[in-house]
Amino acid sequence: MIKEGYVKTETHNGITSIEFHHPQSNSLPSKMLEELAQEIHSIAHDDDTRVVVLRSKGEKTFCAGASFDELASIKNKEEGLQFFSGFANVINAMRKCSKPIIGRIHGKTVGGGVGLVAAMDYAIAVEGADIKLSELAIGIGPFVVGPAVERKIGTAAFSYLAIDATSWRNADWAKRKGLYAELHPTLEGMDESVSRLSNTLSHSSLDAIAELKKIFWKGTEHWDTLLLERAAISGKLVLGEFTKTAIQKFKAKSLS
Amino acid sequence: MIKEGYVKTETHNGITSIEFHHPQSNSLPSKMLEELAQEIHSIAHDDDTRVVVLRSKGEKTFCAGASFDELASIKNKEEGLQFFSGFANVINAMRKCSKPIIGRIHGKTVGGGVGLVAAMDYAIAVEGADIKLSELAIGIGPFVVGPAVERKIGTAAFSYLAIDATSWRNADWAKRKGLYAELHPTLEGMDESVSRLSNTLSHSSLDAIAELKKIFWKGTEHWDTLLLERAAISGKLVLGEFTKTAIQKFKAKSLS
Amino acid sequence: MIKEGYVKTETHNGITSIEFHHPQSNSLPSKMLEELAQEIHSIAHDDDTRVVVLRSKGEKTFCAGASFDELASIKNKEEGLQFFSGFANVINAMRKCSKPIIGRIHGKTVGGGVGLVAAMDYAIAVEGADIKLSELAIGIGPFVVGPAVERKIGTAAFSYLAIDATSWRNADWAKRKGLYAELHPTLEGMDESVSRLSNTLSHSSLDAIAELKKIFWKGTEHWDTLLLERAAISGKLVLGEFTKTAIQKFKAKSLS
Repeated sequence: MIKEGYVKTETHNGITSIEFHHPQSNSLPSKMLEELAQEIHSIAHDDDTRVVVLRSKGEKTFCAGASFDELASIKNKEEGLQFFSGFANVINAMRKCSKPIIGRIHGKTVGGGVGLVAAMDYAIAVEGADIKLSELAIGIGPFVVGPAVERKIGTAAFSYLAIDATSWRNADWAKRKGLYAELHPTLEGMDESVSRLSNTLSHSSLDAIAELKKIFWKGTEHWDTLLLERAAISGKLVLGEFTKTAIQKFKAKSLS
Repeated sequence: MIKEGYVKTETHNGITSIEFHHPQSNSLPSKMLEELAQEIHSIAHDDDTRVVVLRSKGEKTFCAGASFDELASIKNKEEGLQFFSGFANVINAMRKCSKPIIGRIHGKTVGGGVGLVAAMDYAIAVEGADIKLSELAIGIGPFVVGPAVERKIGTAAFSYLAIDATSWRNADWAKRKGLYAELHPTLEGMDESVSRLSNTLSHSSLDAIAELKKIFWKGTEHWDTLLLERAAISGKLVLGEFTKTAIQKFKAKSLS
Repeated sequence: MIKEGYVKTETHNGITSIEFHHPQSNSLPSKMLEELAQEIHSIAHDDDTRVVVLRSKGEKTFCAGASFDELASIKNKEEGLQFFSGFANVINAMRKCSKPIIGRIHGKTVGGGVGLVAAMDYAIAVEGADIKLSELAIGIGPFVVGPAVERKIGTAAFSYLAIDATSWRNADWAKRKGLYAELHPTLEGMDESVSRLSNTLSHSSLDAIAELKKIFWKGTEHWDTLLLERAAISGKLVLGEFTKTAIQKFKAKSLS
């Protein structure tokens, strides 16, 4: 159903890999976000899956966030809420999944993508996997992904990212603040670590892991409603003059 | 009204600078704290202000905390509560201000001053801007500023500062713990960054920023009462024998 | 009453040292945990004690966690709950103690031992004092010590330790995440710092310290019940097939 991007799921020896790709720097349109949320829901109840590895395809960017084309086409509050609920649904699926979710972060991540990374249980990254919360630059904010990012890196680091919306924070910063569990100098090092940990977890006690996931995410039970409230904030802001002007500027730039 | 110190406010192109100075190492008597709180309240409703830069004058010290002379003159619980409410009121004004508050931290900060820095949304510091919570050394504690400091650097780092009251933590420690958003090797680097960010924010969406400030400070709604309860703890402890003796020792030392 | 290990308490000049030792790498059987909890309770009401230093004897290991022999002998849920309540009672005694608890961490720490360190108010460690939460490797999890560890190092770092149960995190990681307040290159440096801080605190205001301890541990009032609920989770998991098999493998290994 998705024309240009895909979400691909494969299971081997208890390890399920979910891979996504979109030609526009792995930005995520609503359809792909729906598919991601759906896959994670299914996996939670799949007896063949003991651990999940979330990854993306492509050279430099792990995830560029929400689809800019879709964002530019939002015409009213309902469409705004609908659009920004996309990341909310994926994050909620991840936090409720009883299986551990390992991330393989091979490149830069922006906006909503940082929320995906924050919702992973254990993100393994490579040097160069820098991050940015650029929402404020177009008159919105990281409202939907905020709770997930803040839970991982704390209120201070989250607010620095959100306020300084035009600057990249490098991968080492992201690791020191706790967004990444590990940071490797090479892709090979990262892949060895993803392999080692997913293999170990696939041989661990499912019951113990399910109890661990409960305590890791204890206190986030209200996110089902909170993240939708947050989506409504973004959905309203995106209709303002500031965002319209910012989008026109960006489009003019990319056409010139 | 203030004899020796001043609080000075200037607005240019949407950027409001609040500068304070006191000849005793930028320590803050009650009058100056009142004036600071008042200025921040006014700015929150000033249409010409889109972003605030909080700074102090002088060479080596950003802020030495509460005025020692005033502290030494407290005679009863009411005066104690009144005195320690000074920083509470400034911190509450900062957290409720809908405009982002950038800090320019050009030197050392002690006690209540660390609370001011913690209540900024984005503090930019220079090497040498070391910090200390020295309250315990005179028989009190960082009770009023505690919630702001703990929110920024976490329970662990806050307790280490409070317990080890006679040691400085250097600026790099303060940055790694999250008190500073940025740390620069030179004053020029710090000032360029303050300039860049305040300029960017002055051109950002006011609505988006106001929503961001709400989520940054979500969960602190009870601080209006909490910080006054904390002021009462300090106001009671300061009347004890331990503090009286400590103050006499300090005074004897500074006279000899 | 304890055959192989001991808990020894000594008070000099307001400083009470609690030292424990067990020949099996300072692992802690129930009896020693009871004695530790009892000592901390007594000290809280001892007028001669103004500050506590918690330390262990032996070369390389500060604490290897729960006694493996005892764990292997658990036959039902009641015994499981009883066993895992050991660390819960020590942690609850530490958080309710009105005197500051300094830790001297001279070597590696595993499992429940990491919970002890997390419940200290100020842990001073030496290079090589690496940590591991190995519970998942035997089909259980760091449920009882979780709240104490998470409070100190945050949700992210806690979950990385719990998920990656077979890997050591080095002492520098533990310091950067906030588990250790200080990390020294040498035993001498560590001991000088323990000495300096305990001496300073023994001359500080008891009233101010008691108020500080209250605010440090504010919000943990429910741990009396929470930690026992957590003990019940471990106590149930430990009866499962996964743990039985894991224990047999470990025993076979140590006999070969």
